[in-house]
Amino acid sequence: MHDLIAGIDIGGTNTVFGLVDRDGVVHGEGRVPTATHAGPEQLVHAVAEGIHTALAAVHGASLRAVGIGAPNGNYYRGTVEFAPNLAWRGIVPLASLFREALGVPACLTNDANAAAIGEMTYGAARGMRDFLLVTLGTGLGSGFVANGHVIYGHDGFAGELGHTIAVRGGRPCGCGRRGCLETYASATGIVLTVRELLEEGGTDSRLARVDVEDLTSRAIADAAAAGDTLAKEAFEITGRTLGEALADAVAITSPEAIILFGGLARSGDLILAPTVRALEETLLPIFRGKTRILLSALMDRNAAVLGAAALALAEESDR
Amino acid sequence: MHDLIAGIDIGGTNTVFGLVDRDGVVHGEGRVPTATHAGPEQLVHAVAEGIHTALAAVHGASLRAVGIGAPNGNYYRGTVEFAPNLAWRGIVPLASLFREALGVPACLTNDANAAAIGEMTYGAARGMRDFLLVTLGTGLGSGFVANGHVIYGHDGFAGELGHTIAVRGGRPCGCGRRGCLETYASATGIVLTVRELLEEGGTDSRLARVDVEDLTSRAIADAAAAGDTLAKEAFEITGRTLGEALADAVAITSPEAIILFGGLARSGDLILAPTVRALEETLLPIFRGKTRILLSALMDRNAAVLGAAALALAEESDR
Repeated sequence: MHDLIAGIDIGGTNTVFGLVDRDGVVHGEGRVPTATHAGPEQLVHAVAEGIHTALAAVHGASLRAVGIGAPNGNYYRGTVEFAPNLAWRGIVPLASLFREALGVPACLTNDANAAAIGEMTYGAARGMRDFLLVTLGTGLGSGFVANGHVIYGHDGFAGELGHTIAVRGGRPCGCGRRGCLETYASATGIVLTVRELLEEGGTDSRLARVDVEDLTSRAIADAAAAGDTLAKEAFEITGRTLGEALADAVAITSPEAIILFGGLARSGDLILAPTVRALEETLLPIFRGKTRILLSALMDRNAAVLGAAALALAEESDR
Repeated sequence: MHDLIAGIDIGGTNTVFGLVDRDGVVHGEGRVPTATHAGPEQLVHAVAEGIHTALAAVHGASLRAVGIGAPNGNYYRGTVEFAPNLAWRGIVPLASLFREALGVPACLTNDANAAAIGEMTYGAARGMRDFLLVTLGTGLGSGFVANGHVIYGHDGFAGELGHTIAVRGGRPCGCGRRGCLETYASATGIVLTVRELLEEGGTDSRLARVDVEDLTSRAIADAAAAGDTLAKEAFEITGRTLGEALADAVAITSPEAIILFGGLARSGDLILAPTVRALEETLLPIFRGKTRILLSALMDRNAAVLGAAALALAEESDR
């Protein structure tokens, strides 16, 4: 007899789910395209069917709760609000749709908060009460945990470290402002940095011969690993900008650790080394040498699904 | 029969205490010079004597707990650590000294956190679970409250908004770095701003005729209230720098309100108006129009004593 939690990760292209037990073992999983469904009701119906099918394949299993991670997810309301990468308009009450479809408690949060809860429950932040998770993907997402709880803020939208200003009047951001941290410290940001370095005359770099559409953070990491000076400089600049911003974040919440996650974090020491150096150089003296920067322990597992399941698990134990 | 809490505020010059009930009414108070005592043990002895005397004057009163607010106070350890404005060296276990001297539970935190708890218990933040208190005095102190609890961080030193960087490479700060917010947005910061404006040629200002030692934030507020252009410009610059920094803080913790406290906050609209304007102009769109900026409700009462007492009260109810 297994009590299982369904963790659901709503992505722009696919929605992935997994049936997770208390120890983080995934007993079944599935995938449904997000965008081909006419609306959220149809998507919820298809995911619920997939969950029932996966559940039937696990001997003696019963579904206890559902946790959902979604872009622009609001924990307090269980809604997805004006998500730019989803086809739905306005405010969608996704948690209550899943609650009705599956007949179990459902809760929802945004992807970065779900990842933070996943690290706290199953990953690199086990046993920590104060830490910060930073996702370095297309943008920069963050989940702040203080006193053992995610900081949601009064409206459910806290944790937007990616939209603190790194360079006043700097690069234009998708949010309509300028100089946001995520325009520098993200997979997208490092590509922009390389383009700027190339325009400034980095013709010796092997990246000068890469087509624009192939110039990805992965290609930059490969070039840096092969010793390309310009690619290494791009990681230095990215790490410095990130480390300086993290020093300000540490001054506010003083986390035990900062956990890096997502595409750019996969480049390992290339991003870690300059970030740690800039952080330590920039920190207020009383904080120096006290905050560890770690890589996610869930990067090669389905972190978003585990995080969403961990959220539901945490709600269970609060109930 | 009154259960009273002793709230103690350790200042560089004087240590002030008050006997406070659950409703925030002060039933007795006293004052002891801080620096004339040979060491912390002697100060604790003198304060404990004062508390006993004040307690004896309240009919049927008994002491239930002690709360202490102190510069560089560490909540977790109950210690004052390397406080630059106190004559004591190193780490002083002040909470346990008071516990032994008075025979009741004692807890301690830094002044800004104590003020935040005071506002939450007796002041402008009653009923709020997510807010930020900012003290604009000689420096800039801050207390962040999320999910109804002060963010202490893993080491007890969180909440150093004054030492986030407002201007990279900017004004030298007492912490040894450059450009810290408190070198701009504080009573000291606005004086520096006025000096810079005067050096740039603000000879028409009435502040050009004020002696250096009389150039205080109060004198600047008086000049601005009288229409002095340079003084008003200094408030604009100060409020803009503060508002921009608060926009970044809101992106991280999304507070319901930001409460301003301390010397510079006494100038009211002179500092509020440009701060609110810069905040709203700079905020990420989803946060606009949602975070109120308020003045402290405890400014004309003994906020530090009330805050320290409120800390002890909160500990009582957690026990």
